Amino acid sequence: MSTSATPKKYKVIGTRPIRHDGVDKVTGRAKYGADVKLPGMLQGAILRSPHAHAKILSIDTSKAAALPGVRALVTSADLPDQESRTVELGEGAAYMPHLSANILARGKVHYKGHAIAGVAADSIHIAQQAIKLIEVRYEQLPVVLDVCQAMRSDASVLNDDVFTESIGATADQQKHLVPSNVAKHFLFEKGDIAAGFALADVVIEREFDTTMVHQGYIEPHNATAFWNADGKLSVWMSTQGSFSVQLQMSELLRIPVSTVKIVPMEIGGGFGGKISVYLPPVAALLSKKCGLPVQIIMTRDAVFEATGPTPGSHIRVKVGVTKDGKLTAGEAWIAFEAGAFPGSPIAPGCMCIFACYDFPNARVEGFDVCVNKPRTNAYRAPGSTQVAFAIESVVDELCRTIGMDAAEFRLHNAAKEGTRRVDGPVFARIGMTETVEAIRTSQHYLSTKSGKYQGRGIASGFWFNVGMKSSVTATVNADGTVALVEGCPDIGGTRTSIAMQLAETLGIRAEDVSPSVVDTGSVGYSDVTGGSRITFATGIAAVEAARDIQRQLVERAALIWDVDPSQVRYEDGAIVGPSSNRMTFGELAGKIHHTGGPVIGSGTSSAATQAGAFGTHCADVEVDADTGKVTLLRYTVAQDVGTAIHPGYVEGQLQGGAVQGIGWALNEEYWYNEQGTMKNATFLDYRIPTCYDLPMIETILIEVPDPQHPYGVRGVGEVPICPPPAAIANAIYDAIGVRMNSLPMTPQNVLRNILAGKQ
Amino acid sequence: MSTSATPKKYKVIGTRPIRHDGVDKVTGRAKYGADVKLPGMLQGAILRSPHAHAKILSIDTSKAAALPGVRALVTSADLPDQESRTVELGEGAAYMPHLSANILARGKVHYKGHAIAGVAADSIHIAQQAIKLIEVRYEQLPVVLDVCQAMRSDASVLNDDVFTESIGATADQQKHLVPSNVAKHFLFEKGDIAAGFALADVVIEREFDTTMVHQGYIEPHNATAFWNADGKLSVWMSTQGSFSVQLQMSELLRIPVSTVKIVPMEIGGGFGGKISVYLPPVAALLSKKCGLPVQIIMTRDAVFEATGPTPGSHIRVKVGVTKDGKLTAGEAWIAFEAGAFPGSPIAPGCMCIFACYDFPNARVEGFDVCVNKPRTNAYRAPGSTQVAFAIESVVDELCRTIGMDAAEFRLHNAAKEGTRRVDGPVFARIGMTETVEAIRTSQHYLSTKSGKYQGRGIASGFWFNVGMKSSVTATVNADGTVALVEGCPDIGGTRTSIAMQLAETLGIRAEDVSPSVVDTGSVGYSDVTGGSRITFATGIAAVEAARDIQRQLVERAALIWDVDPSQVRYEDGAIVGPSSNRMTFGELAGKIHHTGGPVIGSGTSSAATQAGAFGTHCADVEVDADTGKVTLLRYTVAQDVGTAIHPGYVEGQLQGGAVQGIGWALNEEYWYNEQGTMKNATFLDYRIPTCYDLPMIETILIEVPDPQHPYGVRGVGEVPICPPPAAIANAIYDAIGVRMNSLPMTPQNVLRNILAGKQ
Repeated sequence: MSTSATPKKYKVIGTRPIRHDGVDKVTGRAKYGADVKLPGMLQGAILRSPHAHAKILSIDTSKAAALPGVRALVTSADLPDQESRTVELGEGAAYMPHLSANILARGKVHYKGHAIAGVAADSIHIAQQAIKLIEVRYEQLPVVLDVCQAMRSDASVLNDDVFTESIGATADQQKHLVPSNVAKHFLFEKGDIAAGFALADVVIEREFDTTMVHQGYIEPHNATAFWNADGKLSVWMSTQGSFSVQLQMSELLRIPVSTVKIVPMEIGGGFGGKISVYLPPVAALLSKKCGLPVQIIMTRDAVFEATGPTPGSHIRVKVGVTKDGKLTAGEAWIAFEAGAFPGSPIAPGCMCIFACYDFPNARVEGFDVCVNKPRTNAYRAPGSTQVAFAIESVVDELCRTIGMDAAEFRLHNAAKEGTRRVDGPVFARIGMTETVEAIRTSQHYLSTKSGKYQGRGIASGFWFNVGMKSSVTATVNADGTVALVEGCPDIGGTRTSIAMQLAETLGIRAEDVSPSVVDTGSVGYSDVTGGSRITFATGIAAVEAARDIQRQLVERAALIWDVDPSQVRYEDGAIVGPSSNRMTFGELAGKIHHTGGPVIGSGTSSAATQAGAFGTHCADVEVDADTGKVTLLRYTVAQDVGTAIHPGYVEGQLQGGAVQGIGWALNEEYWYNEQGTMKNATFLDYRIPTCYDLPMIETILIEVPDPQHPYGVRGVGEVPICPPPAAIANAIYDAIGVRMNSLPMTPQNVLRNILAGKQ
Repeated sequence: MSTSATPKKYKVIGTRPIRHDGVDKVTGRAKYGADVKLPGMLQGAILRSPHAHAKILSIDTSKAAALPGVRALVTSADLPDQESRTVELGEGAAYMPHLSANILARGKVHYKGHAIAGVAADSIHIAQQAIKLIEVRYEQLPVVLDVCQAMRSDASVLNDDVFTESIGATADQQKHLVPSNVAKHFLFEKGDIAAGFALADVVIEREFDTTMVHQGYIEPHNATAFWNADGKLSVWMSTQGSFSVQLQMSELLRIPVSTVKIVPMEIGGGFGGKISVYLPPVAALLSKKCGLPVQIIMTRDAVFEATGPTPGSHIRVKVGVTKDGKLTAGEAWIAFEAGAFPGSPIAPGCMCIFACYDFPNARVEGFDVCVNKPRTNAYRAPGSTQVAFAIESVVDELCRTIGMDAAEFRLHNAAKEGTRRVDGPVFARIGMTETVEAIRTSQHYLSTKSGKYQGRGIASGFWFNVGMKSSVTATVNADGTVALVEGCPDIGGTRTSIAMQLAETLGIRAEDVSPSVVDTGSVGYSDVTGGSRITFATGIAAVEAARDIQRQLVERAALIWDVDPSQVRYEDGAIVGPSSNRMTFGELAGKIHHTGGPVIGSGTSSAATQAGAFGTHCADVEVDADTGKVTLLRYTVAQDVGTAIHPGYVEGQLQGGAVQGIGWALNEEYWYNEQGTMKNATFLDYRIPTCYDLPMIETILIEVPDPQHPYGVRGVGEVPICPPPAAIANAIYDAIGVRMNSLPMTPQNVLRNILAGKQ
């Protein structure tokens, strides 16, 4: 299922060793946040708002506090006041008053499930009972759920400290004087769109809607905090970024960052949703009050209602082409639900919508809009899937209108090295063209479609991939193995993909490297596991550490052979000197204790950036014309994966990403009633795809090395979620001639469109 | 209570910050081996020999295995066979067949308490019950308990693979052909002792006996092992050297060293006794058999009977002096109990006995002798206390004979820089003279003795102190603090003493460094915590790591100021450049994420050696002439402590060491019956001193910096145990005219000598 554009030139890279954490995972030994047990540990529970929008008039905790077994109670009054300031968290900036108010509601609740108070008690049952004894008086406020309604000047405003900030736009400066649900207004322009549309033979303009969806990680959020008598705070938890949590805790609790130690446990899925903190500050404050460790594990409904899903959106796209299939202009208007507080991924949404193509003229306008839903957060290629659904549907319609093959059209217009994006940057070496070509020539695309109500669609997608900061240290064992210490939590198998790069550089086996992810006190600063950055950036740090080890081993060998180090070189897993002197890594490792002692290599990555990644997907569907149910018959993912360090994991990322996109396309949605209550906050009702719903996801790995990484690594984790909704929508059109313009494409939604078409 | 020979020139060194682990210790939060709890963990128990010397004819475990709740059973048949080979463990060499046979007896038992089998069961009660169901048939052998009797050719021989190895001696080569209890025979010579004794006006020759004593650590040995399905073995335990355990486990179980991870927990005392392994291989084999974690915690009687106490000894010393107090020659014959297998500290005993003095002519002969007692091991200045008791008693008697003040005499003859020891090496800068001078001019020594049966004695002692290997990494936090990672378990406060050296070098506060001791997979190779080496050697590594950080920060500052790094220097906690540019460490730390990312410093120490340390103690006692009870009235320790990094801890080491020496002098002993059963294997019967038995131990810190360390650190932990037995014996003589020549000087032993003197 995988093909490689480059011949194999590595010994370890490109192989498929068993993951280092594999046995612990399959035997159930791996330790997750909920496995943490500390002496005297209490259990905590959170009181959450029953209303989507209300003022808090009073909170009376006296009855709860009097319940035997209750040890501590906290509300937002226990959180330090936050000045109006924005803090850089590595993965983005956070406006502290909002970050804090999302931990424990301050004066008002912004969404159903908004945390109001925390209780620590001798048992979870007592804690839950105590929660019910807390008396809160509310004054309900009008609920705003729809992103377009929230933008109206007469809409109920969620935050009186939010004023529209215009970025690139100048026309609406006067709006800034009154609070608004519109937190940000972006405008990106390239060329002259009026002239561009004038050159077009065909112009199509369509509107699209997507609903809020959740990352759907299996493991709920958890935190076990112990605030020691010396002021040192330790937190064991599931997180994508222990150093980010450390900084958030420091800022939220106004304590020095070095007094906070975060111990990242194994993580049962994150996908962007385990970067912001929810429980740790509450657990910490409870622990501080009672002097005992406090553990809080989120309930499933709270995970849905009160963490950080990805926004629903309203998108308008207008694209012009010549009749021979050349794009002339594109225009987009995008509104994303920020949720309760500003912060949707509207900026990347704006940057991604036209990124797959070389648009000579383009204009993108985007809005970050507060609504009475949980504050959205990152979800795998944040913002890109929504806009890919829109642009790729329009491109498909354009192809049909001018009668051009959809793959052919994309090859004509694909972004390539040197193409300038609408937001400014110029692409380095990228593989958009290669992914389309791979699909165009795939067995899947070349196969004959058959059967009534069956159809095929393709769609492309883009994600940036980021660099950011990583640290590793690596120490040489006397038996020729290396212990590798990393600071970034391992979500998708990065212990192995980093170990493999270290092994490749040293010329040893992947199995000879023992990787571990340690706490914030035991390794250098490392940014979050996100942005498809770890195999790239931590990989660079590991290669640097390996070179550091090489350098030291060359010196040791020179000492042993009594020659100048300049006469010695590290080559192919061995140290080679004059007079046919040669020692393998393992042989010299056995001698280090007698030639100067321990050898420690360290490496960091900081300045490196990635070139971005592209994927093109092909979907075959069958539509039940009577029920609207869409069955996926075949699905192929082609992606520019740079150099596939561990092809098995890369395939897994492509498959997992595609499946999340398929769920988003066909099933998943936040189903709110008019009062703003999510009616499907369980995994029975919030339906993510299972293996029964899916064909085998076929993958084509196209290796276009990123020159900015020593082995050509390119992030692979995020882009595969982007194309599925459009690919499936295009296939549905191909099957039954119905153009779906909203997600999810559930049976009832598809059937409604079928019936509307028959009228 | 402390004086310093050097003016203060440091900001952090010499201050007394609160220890970083202090709060956890005083609040009971610190996690020891017995606090480890793993899911599904079983409890283990050990079957131990009731006989001191016997052949094992058969072991029948069938009844034990049939007991419900028993999950696994192991005997020595489960331990891999060991070839006849010696393995270097960093802290010394181990002969593998003996190391293995001491874990689980192989064919015969060598001492009462020798481990024979291990059981893992659902509870400790089931495990203990199962132990009783194991049926062992023995053939008892003659028991050898006395070191001199064990050397006789007609003695029952413990090990048929032990032949006398002569080191420096040639006369007894023929003995090597038959197995012997004498494992080693050392001979060190300097000058011409016959000529030396011919020059003497007075020659005194005396014989001394000491009994086996235990380190008396409060926390018993423990081990929790989990042998994972992927072949990776993890052990959580109390140990002085996690990397040494890793190596011992690798060699004992014949598995690659990198498959073993040792997690050092907090340690409740070691004093040398927690270097060799006892329980971990048994726990590991049990875990391998049943696939579950197994925890074994040693009982107190097993700690006494079956770990590694320090040997009893028989010593003959002959010393000659001129009548004006000049040493002319010394001769010593020393036999140490090795215990069941060879390995007593006879070599350091031989090297230490004459080390305090400049003997022009000397000869030392030493014997390592197997007896049916537990295999001895290191105990604080191993071998030096026994010999100090002998030599310092004889020196005292010589002083009285020629009528010279004991301090004066020592000043005349003290070893100093350039003095060659009997075993060859020449002293670097040492402080023996300074310690005697400090006592001679102390308030204590100058005070008037008063009262009948009251007396005063002084004695000196020496210990080498070692260097060996240490690794640290240190990472800079954005808030101007540093996380420091170490590999050596912290027994005596070294997290703080190392952090202080890092802080001093960086010009920050000790509180701004967060030290932690991590597992063997997360830091570079680090030798055992022992030999008074950590503050010295790990200190060097920390200073190197700090300089590594300085170098990187200079580069960062140069980047910010846009100048060449050669124009920038690190000075007094700040980075200073041209044009009055200056940033404190904290200011620059806040900028590192924007100037290249994380800053990680690493440092190792390997080649450095120490100059050795000396102490002179002064003891005032009162002897109850009717009961023989000795009461300590006043006690002063003067020691050359190099540079006292944290004077409070140094004082604590001097006090703790002296108290252990006092216990050895007055109370502690292994009390065996004729069958080789220890009759006092509890802390009620094995009497270590409590605060009710002791005066405040006064300390005089004499700072003679060791030039081999950047801050002049000298190991301080071991030497204070050496002088007390002799100082107290000399004081007893001063009080009642009775010369004690055996330890311990319990009431009955003192009374016996008093009565013998009256006959």
